[in-house]
Amino acid sequence: MTVDDQDGAAALLRSAIAGDRRALARLLTVVEAGGDELHSIAAAIFAAGRGAHTVGLTGSPGAGKSTLTDALVGEILLRDGKAAVVAVDPSSPYSGGAILGDRVRLSDAHSLRDDVYMRSLASRGQLGGLSLAVPSAVRALDAAGWPVVLIETVGVGQSEIAIADNDDTTVVVVNPGWGDEVQANKAGLLEIADVLVVNKADRAGADATVRDLERMLHLGSARPWTPAVVTTVATDGIGLDSLWDVICAHRRHLDDSGEGARRRAQRRMAEVRERVRHLLSRATTTAEGTPAGRELLELVSAGSLDPVTAAARLIRIADRVAGGD
Amino acid sequence: MTVDDQDGAAALLRSAIAGDRRALARLLTVVEAGGDELHSIAAAIFAAGRGAHTVGLTGSPGAGKSTLTDALVGEILLRDGKAAVVAVDPSSPYSGGAILGDRVRLSDAHSLRDDVYMRSLASRGQLGGLSLAVPSAVRALDAAGWPVVLIETVGVGQSEIAIADNDDTTVVVVNPGWGDEVQANKAGLLEIADVLVVNKADRAGADATVRDLERMLHLGSARPWTPAVVTTVATDGIGLDSLWDVICAHRRHLDDSGEGARRRAQRRMAEVRERVRHLLSRATTTAEGTPAGRELLELVSAGSLDPVTAAARLIRIADRVAGGD
Repeated sequence: MTVDDQDGAAALLRSAIAGDRRALARLLTVVEAGGDELHSIAAAIFAAGRGAHTVGLTGSPGAGKSTLTDALVGEILLRDGKAAVVAVDPSSPYSGGAILGDRVRLSDAHSLRDDVYMRSLASRGQLGGLSLAVPSAVRALDAAGWPVVLIETVGVGQSEIAIADNDDTTVVVVNPGWGDEVQANKAGLLEIADVLVVNKADRAGADATVRDLERMLHLGSARPWTPAVVTTVATDGIGLDSLWDVICAHRRHLDDSGEGARRRAQRRMAEVRERVRHLLSRATTTAEGTPAGRELLELVSAGSLDPVTAAARLIRIADRVAGGD
Repeated sequence: MTVDDQDGAAALLRSAIAGDRRALARLLTVVEAGGDELHSIAAAIFAAGRGAHTVGLTGSPGAGKSTLTDALVGEILLRDGKAAVVAVDPSSPYSGGAILGDRVRLSDAHSLRDDVYMRSLASRGQLGGLSLAVPSAVRALDAAGWPVVLIETVGVGQSEIAIADNDDTTVVVVNPGWGDEVQANKAGLLEIADVLVVNKADRAGADATVRDLERMLHLGSARPWTPAVVTTVATDGIGLDSLWDVICAHRRHLDDSGEGARRRAQRRMAEVRERVRHLLSRATTTAEGTPAGRELLELVSAGSLDPVTAAARLIRIADRVAGGD
């Protein structure tokens, strides 16, 4: 990396902290790339943090997470608050930093306002990369003065639960009739939920689903915070006031009990380990691409070198690669 | 590692190749430990390989895998063959190399015979470790002259499918009424099956289950090998002749089509990458335990160092650790 790049990243951070939205957008691109530029300013971004409250919205595809996120942003604005939204799309290979197609509505309604900021993060084809981009993006938004960051998982499945590792308050969105879902998935979602939302609550079966959820919540072991169950009809703006009240109550619980600080410390530790795995795996991939690495793998494929010996040799090549940069 | 250890491991291998069963047992302990001693002889074990046919038996807990494995060993002996059995127990933290409790029957019936060898591998609490121990153990048994190695998963769930990565022929064991299982799990098991066994076929619903399986198999895309469906009553020794015939037919298909060599090459490549991940993760764990590593993680936990910077520093410590041994 050149001195110019470092200066450039540091200047972006200064401008973003001062409230420049274009600088923040470029800073988030640096963060998403996760390269040397990020490393040069990660400590400064962290030091500039103001303690934003992060709220993750997760749940099955089709539960109405996008609409609920939009409506929640509207509620926060009604209360004279401001909010940033990070839309995480594990299925999209690359967002180019652009707002995703289905979020144009949020963009139309809110994007010209100073009190809303919207950003999509895509996975670039690897979930590991995404799980690393989210915490860094949240810290950048925090440094830039956004007191609330909503993290919404767009698209399908796998990362529904992983996303909860990155937020202070996890909102799990379900619909009436959710009782029919696979038991194991239900248990996993209940485990991570701080707030449960039965969205599309004007549909048949909403009351039964609320009762079902409350019963399951009381079956679990006693927790310092019992997840609240809230009903909403996000398309009609119904129930958002209660939802935001409950989210704020959870935030106060985190602050008062010390649980928030404990969770954040745990998240930082987990992130270090995930980043180490990522850096080591990158060095190994690079090693596999060197002439020596390619030759090694060809020998294994041909059956003239055993995997145990090959792995040890590849590590030595990766060490040279990692040590050389 | 001392020169004595190296000599010891090499001597064990020579004795095991010569047919010494006690030496083989000790060799497998070296293999299971996966440490420096294994590294010193891995190439020699690989070079001594004679091309054993590995047959994995997998399926839901309670499907009768252990009984079927015993009965299949009996069938192989009837045909004047010989067989080694590797029982993989992902749920047991440590086997101490001993035969698992529920395998005493196999042990009683077969263990005094020269043409049967039985070994349990336990996970030592980490699936990664187990997935590395199995291919090395299979190669050691191959070097020691065992022409057929049956790999049976003992215990529960998670690794049902992973185990198929280690064998030439995957036998999936189900029971009558299997049609009621979760659809996703069924699809995964059908995907890996070379041979499907409906065991306990004297129970109600066996015919329907066979029809169900055959229908599902024909729904899938055309494959060079269409999995055969075999019915057995392992407790009564019924159907084992057909099962072994089908397994042998699959072996011939692998040899004749070149598919066997392709699969083995792919498995070796996957094993190299898995081993590299394991070695790197071990170096990182060691780095975390050094005074510098501990200090780093304490700073992260306290919130005075950001995870991105901490990860980069931990890598540098890990490199020094890896370079120092």
